[in-house]
Amino acid sequence: MSERFFIDTLPLGNQAVLKGDEARHLTRVLRAKIGDAVRLFNGRGSEWPAQVVQIGRDTVSLEIGTACVDRPSDSRLLTVAAALPKGDRQKWMVEKLTELGVGRLIPLATTRGVAEATAGAQARLERGVIEACKQCGRNTLMEVAAGHTLDQLLAAIPAGTYGLIAHPGGSPLNTGALRAATAVLALVGPEGGFTDDELVAADRSGLVRVSLGPHILRVETAAISLAAQF
Amino acid sequence: MSERFFIDTLPLGNQAVLKGDEARHLTRVLRAKIGDAVRLFNGRGSEWPAQVVQIGRDTVSLEIGTACVDRPSDSRLLTVAAALPKGDRQKWMVEKLTELGVGRLIPLATTRGVAEATAGAQARLERGVIEACKQCGRNTLMEVAAGHTLDQLLAAIPAGTYGLIAHPGGSPLNTGALRAATAVLALVGPEGGFTDDELVAADRSGLVRVSLGPHILRVETAAISLAAQF
Repeated sequence: MSERFFIDTLPLGNQAVLKGDEARHLTRVLRAKIGDAVRLFNGRGSEWPAQVVQIGRDTVSLEIGTACVDRPSDSRLLTVAAALPKGDRQKWMVEKLTELGVGRLIPLATTRGVAEATAGAQARLERGVIEACKQCGRNTLMEVAAGHTLDQLLAAIPAGTYGLIAHPGGSPLNTGALRAATAVLALVGPEGGFTDDELVAADRSGLVRVSLGPHILRVETAAISLAAQF
Repeated sequence: MSERFFIDTLPLGNQAVLKGDEARHLTRVLRAKIGDAVRLFNGRGSEWPAQVVQIGRDTVSLEIGTACVDRPSDSRLLTVAAALPKGDRQKWMVEKLTELGVGRLIPLATTRGVAEATAGAQARLERGVIEACKQCGRNTLMEVAAGHTLDQLLAAIPAGTYGLIAHPGGSPLNTGALRAATAVLALVGPEGGFTDDELVAADRSGLVRVSLGPHILRVETAAISLAAQF
């Protein structure tokens, strides 16, 4: 497939303009020339073939062809609410969850959590989503929500959601029920696990405690495992 | 859980000795003192409670308690044969496959592969397995085989193995059949994909082409996804 670039504004007529990171990637990393063919996607399902027509200092102008929505937006939605792991593990988690089609990631503030869901972290994760989408051919961005406390999250679970909380010693994951559900909310705790109070609060909200196998999984592994089985 | 350390020799009586990386981890990183309690595992299913009795320059002597085999070795075996991705992605893949219980990883030489399965790479991956086992509580090491060509691999598939090859456009993964199988061999190609010749050779050996969803997954993501669904 030809290289893909993200545009966050709608094209005007048959013209689109890449700016910032995307323009720099095209001109400085890939050394694009006038006439080169690429593809553009807007993160909301649309994709366009495009040709470079002008290269500016920090912008690239392109002429676009007919939009295609190569896949209808998925009618099933997996939301992963996870305590953010540290450092590179955050980046990895976002890349893998994006590739595996997770709809929304909610950074979850927990008692034993190690990384805060600051606005800076959120922006960095959103950038990671775009990078992963460019690479894996996904045309709809995974949403990265602002950080939630457990109480905020549990108070706002939409009706009809199949809610899970990953916890060692929980019941084996019911993969049939998981695949039959149209809306799933899966909670993943920090390295040290959820506290008893947090587990009880999740129980009260009807979340099912599930075990993901015999080993103690890292945060990102648990999240990725749930996404792969959705 | 208390810290876990890997011993590759059987304890003599009630004495065990840690050397090399494991001894340094205990003394220099964790700054262990005489009397500290840890756990030892031998990568073949056994685990011992242990207490530090002597700290040398590059060795630590421990007194061990009664061995426990905390889990019978799994009667199901997943072998992942994957073209090694580059750099850190190798390390990540090994960590995740170990956490998720994969039995054996075979580095696969392919036409479009980017990283060679040298003896050095194999040793590095084996070290990664030990690190992941220490962390996730797994007492049986994932085996890292020497590199195989596709021909070597296909010529030696044990009878009764359910063989899969991940390829975009394959049939959806039959998760029921996957979970019912006792021995699975799953092939994952390099970033550029398997060549037509490689696919035909896999077809001839009875491997089923499976798709892992609508996006183009990175090597390590495909391998991890298969492991999570095993």
